[in-house]
Amino acid sequence: MPADIPMLADIRAAADRIAGKVLRTPVLPARGGLNELTGSTLYFKAENLQRAGAFKFRGACNALAQLDANQRQAGVITHSSGNHAAALALAGQLFDVPVQVVMPKTASEVKVAAVQSYGGRIHFCEPTQQAREERLADLSQSTGAHFVPPYDDWRIICGQGTAALELVEDQPDLDVVIAPVGGGGLLSGTAIAVKGHSPDIVVIGAEPVLAGDAHLSFVTGRLHPQMPPRSIADGLLTALSERTFEIIRRHVDAIQTVSEIDIVRAMRLIGERLKLVVEPSAAVPLALVLSAPAQFAGRRVGIILSGGNLDLQRWRW
Amino acid sequence: MPADIPMLADIRAAADRIAGKVLRTPVLPARGGLNELTGSTLYFKAENLQRAGAFKFRGACNALAQLDANQRQAGVITHSSGNHAAALALAGQLFDVPVQVVMPKTASEVKVAAVQSYGGRIHFCEPTQQAREERLADLSQSTGAHFVPPYDDWRIICGQGTAALELVEDQPDLDVVIAPVGGGGLLSGTAIAVKGHSPDIVVIGAEPVLAGDAHLSFVTGRLHPQMPPRSIADGLLTALSERTFEIIRRHVDAIQTVSEIDIVRAMRLIGERLKLVVEPSAAVPLALVLSAPAQFAGRRVGIILSGGNLDLQRWRW
Repeated sequence: MPADIPMLADIRAAADRIAGKVLRTPVLPARGGLNELTGSTLYFKAENLQRAGAFKFRGACNALAQLDANQRQAGVITHSSGNHAAALALAGQLFDVPVQVVMPKTASEVKVAAVQSYGGRIHFCEPTQQAREERLADLSQSTGAHFVPPYDDWRIICGQGTAALELVEDQPDLDVVIAPVGGGGLLSGTAIAVKGHSPDIVVIGAEPVLAGDAHLSFVTGRLHPQMPPRSIADGLLTALSERTFEIIRRHVDAIQTVSEIDIVRAMRLIGERLKLVVEPSAAVPLALVLSAPAQFAGRRVGIILSGGNLDLQRWRW
Repeated sequence: MPADIPMLADIRAAADRIAGKVLRTPVLPARGGLNELTGSTLYFKAENLQRAGAFKFRGACNALAQLDANQRQAGVITHSSGNHAAALALAGQLFDVPVQVVMPKTASEVKVAAVQSYGGRIHFCEPTQQAREERLADLSQSTGAHFVPPYDDWRIICGQGTAALELVEDQPDLDVVIAPVGGGGLLSGTAIAVKGHSPDIVVIGAEPVLAGDAHLSFVTGRLHPQMPPRSIADGLLTALSERTFEIIRRHVDAIQTVSEIDIVRAMRLIGERLKLVVEPSAAVPLALVLSAPAQFAGRRVGIILSGGNLDLQRWRW
């Protein structure tokens, strides 16, 4: 194994590094008949209750905690239309590091307001990948800001893995852990943590059919590009990177896809039965359990509820 | 003090009695700018995550744990259109005690379904207090079932007080604890627990203006009857009993009222910022902080989020 590929010890080191900054979110058992409905015994790692509303805050803190003095002074920069931007902005506030974010000018008001409320400086750009990357490169060069990518970075991956580490520490007798997969930062960190801690636990990535590129990459063995952005699960539209794909091939047992209807049904059940607000991406693992009950029947299943950043006033249950 | 009025030791005894049945729900710090918005430092005791979706499960378990063999066999009965019915039904399932519930035939489908899903037997009646009480008396006599009232009962009050006991154990440096008040079971249990544990913490009851009978009773010193049921906070429409009024006069520092608009605003903030689904009654304490920020500025405030049983499909944020 190449020396730089992280292992459980690196996740533990990340956990030590971010302790006190990051909330140890609760692991909530299923209630309201969800176990009876699915035939499984479910446990939910409630990262929707994390600071800045998602697991992304873990990776952001782990990255900022490792900056050197020059980097801290020049600050950091990223591009993101979603949770990574808000997470990095809040982490920057706590670590006293200036944060710049390149956001598409189409980003939702709620997400723009979140970044601003944490003191992040926003640069708007055209809503294309190319425009984002060019703008980021320009700004990085002119300001000297250090790039903290949303997932293609070992510091980020190890930080994200601390959520699953806490899950298996708090509930060690799981048979399966399911995490959503977009760019693969959460899933690869989860896989390193879970397989390192308990090699017998099955690790599954759950993905919308409409953003099923990670599934295709996994089953064909070669990296597929991002699909057209059509799923309601707007946190899962990006493609795997070489880095996250490598970890996922090594440690993840399966990537399975779910329909949009099951994602909405899972969101509603999480609201009704667990009393939690989650964003669509966070409902994808439960959607998988709902759509394949026989596969999980009688199993103890840990589910990572990845985030809760939903624009409630636009939402109809 | 009369011998039968409970004290902190009785709340502790209840906590021991129901341990393992009742979830120790998390105390969640404010996030998403709620502290900045209010000027206070807020902590939320998340009883919406309790089994059966509300603190009511605590009192129900504490009552059933103290039945004698004859009572266990004959079973228990109550009247309720809300959370007490579901809580008692679930507790009956766990303690293997048959549960009968007299419900108004106008009770919501969601609440009827909850009681049924926990194996409770429902008797529908006309939607008046008199019809409820007569039906309950008849059934109690004919079946020998033991009456477990929704709040006017020391076992219930001591059970409900265990939530606040956990709150002050987990977050001992609070200045204020706020609980919603309807019949007063939660508030009186809260006051016994908090004042017994930390006499310097201010205990406040929060109530909708439109159901402000407890406020009237508190300030006039004599018990006022229930007001017309107009508030959205449908868990707080009942009046205090002699029993809960006695405790509240003794131990509660103030009862304050809030508008319907502030209740809705608080519910939305709890969804958006804390990512929690709560019912309107549970949002009443935060509504008080929002409507009287100067009173709570700079204070560490513990808020009991009493329940999460909201019919999401009928709800518009």
